[in-house]
Amino acid sequence: MSTTTTYAVTGMTCGHCVAAVTEELQAVPGVQDVEVDLAAGGTSQVRVVSDSPLDEQSVRVAVDEAGYTLEGQAP
Amino acid sequence: MSTTTTYAVTGMTCGHCVAAVTEELQAVPGVQDVEVDLAAGGTSQVRVVSDSPLDEQSVRVAVDEAGYTLEGQAP
Repeated sequence: MSTTTTYAVTGMTCGHCVAAVTEELQAVPGVQDVEVDLAAGGTSQVRVVSDSPLDEQSVRVAVDEAGYTLEGQAP
Repeated sequence: MSTTTTYAVTGMTCGHCVAAVTEELQAVPGVQDVEVDLAAGGTSQVRVVSDSPLDEQSVRVAVDEAGYTLEGQAP
């Protein structure tokens, strides 16, 4: 069983940003897969597949750690 | 003795891009120092200090290797 949540993340501009966010999120316990739809300079969509629903705060910390801003769940 | 040349590079958008270009250029024989003035999404200035004048083709290849475009020497 798994949960998929899509987050809105700002500040990402390039493939290196995608790699940095992906790496940080993959280190969050329970995360199985991360996919990023990059909107350079805008709001990127980050889809996270996890074993069970994630605590949004831990996702926020990981995104912040990578140097970007979690705006919340994508609408 | 050293030579300093400033190049115009496009395609760089963030600190990761700066790190990638810097790393590739530092691997070019004779390069002593690299400084980047990032213009995200525009034309960044990349200042390269080397033992002697560099072959522009080797600089171009390094920038290309990092994933960006050398437009030539900065005006």
